[in-house]
Amino acid sequence: MGKPVDVIQSVRLDDENDTLILLDQTVLPNEKNFLHLKELKDIWDAIYHLKVRGAPAIGIAAAYGVYLGTKQSNAETYDDLYNDFKKAKEFLASSRPTAVNLFWALDRMEARFQKEEDKSVKEVISALKEEAEKIRAEDEEVCESIGQHALSLLKSGWGILTHCNAGTIATAKYGTALAPIYLGQEKGYDFKVYADETRPLLQGARLTAWELKEAGVDVTLICDNMASIVMKEGKIQAVLVGCDRVAANGDAANKIGTSGVAILAKHYNIPFYVCAPLSTVDLACKTGDDIHIELRPSEEITSKWYEKPMAPEDVQTYNPAFDVTDNELITGIITENGIAYAPFSENLPKMFKK
Amino acid sequence: MGKPVDVIQSVRLDDENDTLILLDQTVLPNEKNFLHLKELKDIWDAIYHLKVRGAPAIGIAAAYGVYLGTKQSNAETYDDLYNDFKKAKEFLASSRPTAVNLFWALDRMEARFQKEEDKSVKEVISALKEEAEKIRAEDEEVCESIGQHALSLLKSGWGILTHCNAGTIATAKYGTALAPIYLGQEKGYDFKVYADETRPLLQGARLTAWELKEAGVDVTLICDNMASIVMKEGKIQAVLVGCDRVAANGDAANKIGTSGVAILAKHYNIPFYVCAPLSTVDLACKTGDDIHIELRPSEEITSKWYEKPMAPEDVQTYNPAFDVTDNELITGIITENGIAYAPFSENLPKMFKK
Repeated sequence: MGKPVDVIQSVRLDDENDTLILLDQTVLPNEKNFLHLKELKDIWDAIYHLKVRGAPAIGIAAAYGVYLGTKQSNAETYDDLYNDFKKAKEFLASSRPTAVNLFWALDRMEARFQKEEDKSVKEVISALKEEAEKIRAEDEEVCESIGQHALSLLKSGWGILTHCNAGTIATAKYGTALAPIYLGQEKGYDFKVYADETRPLLQGARLTAWELKEAGVDVTLICDNMASIVMKEGKIQAVLVGCDRVAANGDAANKIGTSGVAILAKHYNIPFYVCAPLSTVDLACKTGDDIHIELRPSEEITSKWYEKPMAPEDVQTYNPAFDVTDNELITGIITENGIAYAPFSENLPKMFKK
Repeated sequence: MGKPVDVIQSVRLDDENDTLILLDQTVLPNEKNFLHLKELKDIWDAIYHLKVRGAPAIGIAAAYGVYLGTKQSNAETYDDLYNDFKKAKEFLASSRPTAVNLFWALDRMEARFQKEEDKSVKEVISALKEEAEKIRAEDEEVCESIGQHALSLLKSGWGILTHCNAGTIATAKYGTALAPIYLGQEKGYDFKVYADETRPLLQGARLTAWELKEAGVDVTLICDNMASIVMKEGKIQAVLVGCDRVAANGDAANKIGTSGVAILAKHYNIPFYVCAPLSTVDLACKTGDDIHIELRPSEEITSKWYEKPMAPEDVQTYNPAFDVTDNELITGIITENGIAYAPFSENLPKMFKK
């Protein structure tokens, strides 16, 4: 028998006050602080500063954001409102250039806008709200579906390694890489999850360990550089990670360090799965080489979180936020429509046709 | 033309006051604080709490420590003094069970003690001091020699990745893995060094980046999980690491994460060298399986250094201080007597015969 999953609704609309409620992930695990945001600028800021993070959650936040931003317009005609919508959309799009879900959600909101042509301003705004809510609800379904497919690959008692946070707080519900953990736990599976702390922003320590522990899952926190020893000691039977963007050939961009974990998994002959909602699969992007890697500020490595700086003043750093895991290192890409195996160029497009 | 190397003498005897002077490595890079230690208990504490660290430096500190401890004895006969020496030796030996240099230095001090049989208490103590000084001087020579051998493998302009700290402050002078960097720099080599920060104790960020920067070396600090991307991007032409213990078959125990770096290097076809003074090569230890891996406290991962805890309260952790890099991942083991290549079981013993 499993235990019920304690699901945190980390990205949602407060219907009464029409504000975006976001769990501020930058203050976890010490504070459980929900932000109430109305202003576009604040929503941009929340995405940029990783207060909301995780590809699906960013998409949902952006959808609500562009709705709330457009709602503040004084436009009285469809065309004027569209102009304001476009400005809001463009602004939000600039907050995280690597997050394909951001663009996906914003484009979908625009498509809905266009569908409401000739409707009144009030009706269009109401449609935008409906679309954002739909994006949220669909994400919940997508994650549950990814979780079911992933669970079919796992056995009770297995050790599962994960990197960064692709959990319930990164999505509407369940998460992607963590969805099978929650669904398995409900069925009484006895997983032992190892969470890489994921430097420099510590999403594994602050978020993954936190949400799994809140849900009663057996989770062990390790430093990123301990992934090799836990694999060698036989503690890991599968690796599950989320992703920010999957190219048509299966190359997958995810949090920095993911490619290293994949290489270790291959060395130790452990299956490595990428959990990817189809909204993160970008068939227009041929290979990982086409994925722009965001470089982030030095202080994230040298002084952020610390009591005192932990590196010499003005030391050079290199701080890429993501890396690309080559398709040859990936055992399977788990989508809401099933699991794609190599050759990914052939099998990923099939996922969209189901 | 190179620049002179700024060599810090981090473990030495203050001759005038007969105290052990140690650079406290736990407060770097923010404070350059030299400890002056006379008491055995304080020297034990300095080794246990990593105020002095790095295999050779620990050996030197232990040699000075057992000398200073024995000197405090009230014994009036050789045999009584020997009893007190043995107590001091045993006590110091308990401070770092994985550090073979600790035992090596203490055994060597005991051999010297035994050689002074029938000498006066004063003469024996004087001999112990001489032996400790000799251990220090020899280490300096050993490191320089390792540096010369390693340098013969490298080219100016190369990117060198290193993990943890095997630098001048881990030894009497030059360091092991960093010795060729310093020697190369004196010759005008233009190395670009990438230092893994080395969680959880951040020896790479606090120590390696610090000492290289102090010496004017071009050093870039990265998080441990960025080793894969810098290798993939062609920034690294060789990996150089130190070690705590090398088994007869070439398996090498070093700071946690080293085995992961070695696996990445193999994947990207980059040579991976272990710099090992012969004092760390333990031919009596058959393979890496015989090396005891020290497990350290949880708070090193969850809260040490941080302003606030960065993981949920009471979360489970796994915190091994070392891992073992399998011999098949090692391109060469660089000793003071030359470079051993596979098969190591055959070629490592030859190093002792030169």
